[in-house]
Amino acid sequence: MCRWAAYRGDPLYLEELVSSPAHSLIEQSHCATRAKTATNGDGFGIAWYGDRPEPGRYRDILPAWSDCNLKSLARQIRSPLFLAHVRAATGGGTRRDNCHPFVFENWSFQHNGQISNFDRLRRPMEAMLDDRLFHARSGTTDSELLFLLAMQFGMAVNPIAAMAEAIGFVEGLSLHLTGSVLVRFTSAFSDGRSLYAIRYATDRKAPTLYASPVGSGNCLVSEPLNDDVDAWREIPDGSAVMIDDTGVHVSPFQPEERAADEARTPAAISA
Amino acid sequence: MCRWAAYRGDPLYLEELVSSPAHSLIEQSHCATRAKTATNGDGFGIAWYGDRPEPGRYRDILPAWSDCNLKSLARQIRSPLFLAHVRAATGGGTRRDNCHPFVFENWSFQHNGQISNFDRLRRPMEAMLDDRLFHARSGTTDSELLFLLAMQFGMAVNPIAAMAEAIGFVEGLSLHLTGSVLVRFTSAFSDGRSLYAIRYATDRKAPTLYASPVGSGNCLVSEPLNDDVDAWREIPDGSAVMIDDTGVHVSPFQPEERAADEARTPAAISA
Amino acid sequence: MCRWAAYRGDPLYLEELVSSPAHSLIEQSHCATRAKTATNGDGFGIAWYGDRPEPGRYRDILPAWSDCNLKSLARQIRSPLFLAHVRAATGGGTRRDNCHPFVFENWSFQHNGQISNFDRLRRPMEAMLDDRLFHARSGTTDSELLFLLAMQFGMAVNPIAAMAEAIGFVEGLSLHLTGSVLVRFTSAFSDGRSLYAIRYATDRKAPTLYASPVGSGNCLVSEPLNDDVDAWREIPDGSAVMIDDTGVHVSPFQPEERAADEARTPAAISA
Amino acid sequence: MCRWAAYRGDPLYLEELVSSPAHSLIEQSHCATRAKTATNGDGFGIAWYGDRPEPGRYRDILPAWSDCNLKSLARQIRSPLFLAHVRAATGGGTRRDNCHPFVFENWSFQHNGQISNFDRLRRPMEAMLDDRLFHARSGTTDSELLFLLAMQFGMAVNPIAAMAEAIGFVEGLSLHLTGSVLVRFTSAFSDGRSLYAIRYATDRKAPTLYASPVGSGNCLVSEPLNDDVDAWREIPDGSAVMIDDTGVHVSPFQPEERAADEARTPAAISA
Repeated sequence: MCRWAAYRGDPLYLEELVSSPAHSLIEQSHCATRAKTATNGDGFGIAWYGDRPEPGRYRDILPAWSDCNLKSLARQIRSPLFLAHVRAATGGGTRRDNCHPFVFENWSFQHNGQISNFDRLRRPMEAMLDDRLFHARSGTTDSELLFLLAMQFGMAVNPIAAMAEAIGFVEGLSLHLTGSVLVRFTSAFSDGRSLYAIRYATDRKAPTLYASPVGSGNCLVSEPLNDDVDAWREIPDGSAVMIDDTGVHVSPFQPEERAADEARTPAAISA
Repeated sequence: MCRWAAYRGDPLYLEELVSSPAHSLIEQSHCATRAKTATNGDGFGIAWYGDRPEPGRYRDILPAWSDCNLKSLARQIRSPLFLAHVRAATGGGTRRDNCHPFVFENWSFQHNGQISNFDRLRRPMEAMLDDRLFHARSGTTDSELLFLLAMQFGMAVNPIAAMAEAIGFVEGLSLHLTGSVLVRFTSAFSDGRSLYAIRYATDRKAPTLYASPVGSGNCLVSEPLNDDVDAWREIPDGSAVMIDDTGVHVSPFQPEERAADEARTPAAISA
Repeated sequence: MCRWAAYRGDPLYLEELVSSPAHSLIEQSHCATRAKTATNGDGFGIAWYGDRPEPGRYRDILPAWSDCNLKSLARQIRSPLFLAHVRAATGGGTRRDNCHPFVFENWSFQHNGQISNFDRLRRPMEAMLDDRLFHARSGTTDSELLFLLAMQFGMAVNPIAAMAEAIGFVEGLSLHLTGSVLVRFTSAFSDGRSLYAIRYATDRKAPTLYASPVGSGNCLVSEPLNDDVDAWREIPDGSAVMIDDTGVHVSPFQPEERAADEARTPAAISA
Repeated sequence: MCRWAAYRGDPLYLEELVSSPAHSLIEQSHCATRAKTATNGDGFGIAWYGDRPEPGRYRDILPAWSDCNLKSLARQIRSPLFLAHVRAATGGGTRRDNCHPFVFENWSFQHNGQISNFDRLRRPMEAMLDDRLFHARSGTTDSELLFLLAMQFGMAVNPIAAMAEAIGFVEGLSLHLTGSVLVRFTSAFSDGRSLYAIRYATDRKAPTLYASPVGSGNCLVSEPLNDDVDAWREIPDGSAVMIDDTGVHVSPFQPEERAADEARTPAAISA
């Protein structure tokens, strides 16, 4: 179970989410309270938007709590839009290429969750990618592959719909190949302008997602960053979030049913 | 609070302590049960004796649970005498030079515990080392410095007495410079022939130490490696252990009082 | 251009090839003389056979010359059969999973060379692997993929023939997809019993390969380990080497022509 | 022999010195042309000033050419004043704490050169530091210690004079303890407002130092960043450089003679 935070608003030092709060991301990485696993010591990463279309990124495989570079960068870098992640590996070795956020062109993506039976689904998922996206894959995680699949399905045009199609496709694939389906998916992603998040799980047990104003902006987190319970609004399971200049917009989310529907037809099953 | 294990006997694969048992050292590093801190993710190390007088050593700063090299080495290397350690940093940054075991010539040393107010004691402790030992210091931990101080005080001739003198010296120094004393010290060390351990604390709250037969040999651990409570004999606070061909020998241990005593006399203060 | 060494014979400390000779592998990694690139600072690895069927392995991404663990392991570990490699990346990022030797079950493999246009060939090469070998792939190099392809083509039964088929397949694929072919391939591999090597290049410009007796055994290297020119026998381009208890056996090597032949037929080209 | 670059002027992306030029610092790290050693693969570091008094810093022990984080940071971070360094270790192990730039409060420092017989001088040099500076020392290099010594000698008040005193002190110490003296010292340092550099060697063989306008600002480098020979002005041996809003100021530099002079007098020896 990973932890993450994301922010959109007036430029904010990354440390305001990453290292300063009572339950900052670094603090959470060392001593988790609400989540299932005790330690997020399998690396970390930050992606932030500055003057260029594509984000900057820093990732490493040390535990976040012991990385001096991270502390210095988080204290120095100020950004109007950034993502930060600490990892507890569920699959994919501990190496930089498997650390979130993942970046493709101007897009960034981070994830807390899992795809059951991913080993069975990986090859056909990779086979869906065109060459450009296939060669962009450098790690072995389910998260990176889901992100690239959403890019393939039109993330640049309609990000929420592309994610819905990607998750629906994976659910359908899983039903075909393993006879069962379980995707848990609480993610944040951005094109450098808006900040998006999704909380969804096949079994309605999606990892938590909270929103809160921070300064003049808004942040989204997997776990509250302090004990001020009134400040944190839980985003319900089955939601998509979009944050832009007009505020925080929450709407219902469900996977694109097409793939799943087809999967349930006899023809598809016999295919 | 670190964790460690040590073995002496017929050659044993390191994995028998490091990765295979129910509460192997790697398992403990991820999810501690009896100890105070939840995670030992600040590096690890192994030192083993083979055909040469000096031990081989492998240390790294990744969490032990995610290091493929450690798993391969522990599965491949078989040794009649070895030490293994997972670290939860109490002081000294996360870097290889601060990972146990420490090695000097044919000696190896690993430690679980702490010296209170070490920042105040470090300079005069380092000043006690002759040039050869001073230049052997490559890290910044209290543990490495205690080890080198014991080398200075005659470890090669009488290891338990040298440790007693080193701890006594540090206690005296602390009383002098800070008006208070607290050393907690549960350690294992070896010259490649015998295996030694000490459990001691100024305040009688020393970290735990257990002994158990393993195969034809004996192991010493900071925490039992499995739930077979009858197999593990707790070594009482204030003990020194020596394991050689004739078995496991436990004797009372207390720091060499001279330094502390002198510290309390006006003569010593004026010296 | 990578460098490597391999040994088979009576147990030898790894340092006899890795760090002790005038032009030891570590020395070569820092300051190359005969090879084209000046520095092999993109990681290193060793694989050695001990008491188990599968080899031990240690790899890291630091330059070999600055890794204290490597020096200690090479000085401590003695083996009758081992491979050692220093890397200068031609493709595939600098990370442990891309460091040689690669290991699958009891097999180990290391390589100096390249496949031109590998980006175009990677997907169809990966598609040839059955699920078990596909999931064993953890890096992104052409070398690891060639090795797994040879495993797919029967390495366990006839290693030289499997390599010939793998290289022939890649050459055919390259002709199909890019209209040109260039494979340069100087490699060593072992099943834990015999030591094999191949020196081959499509354009007859294969990286060098030398053999020499060392102690009671034999070693194979990409570059001589000292200036004793009489001691090192150059293995000609287009050769396969097999070292077992009966000595060093060199035979002509060429890729399995079938794939390449098919590639040259009009039918294949129009396919 | 290390390589470095430093800049002061209107905000500039770090990549303009670090990765973009023909002979960028990263390029130099891989394939040196003018310098004595072929490879600077023992780590790297950047320190840059932003909105805070103290600089941000990123250091790592990988070769600069293979670090994706460095490339992303250098492309994203824009600063009016920064230092960048690639390391070829002459002493002090390969670890983050030994990578330049060194930072203390608002000061940053990087160095190319060496102190002969540093092992003999290290203890008395460290003994000169007050507790605050002593505890700030986390590595083992001569460079970091020279920097802290200059802080001790009044860097904050008069940086060039403090460096002159530090170098003079070390030269005197070396004469005392070893009977010979050799300091080579080409360094850059900053308080976040002005950029300073010194080129000096006891034997008049100081590592090179060049200055050049870059955009609206100025940069100082150990080696020119491109082949435009007219653009690069060599700073002569025995010079101090100060760059502020009024331009580049070069003045003669020699170590503070007092320490060295005293060292030659009987009184000083008996002191």
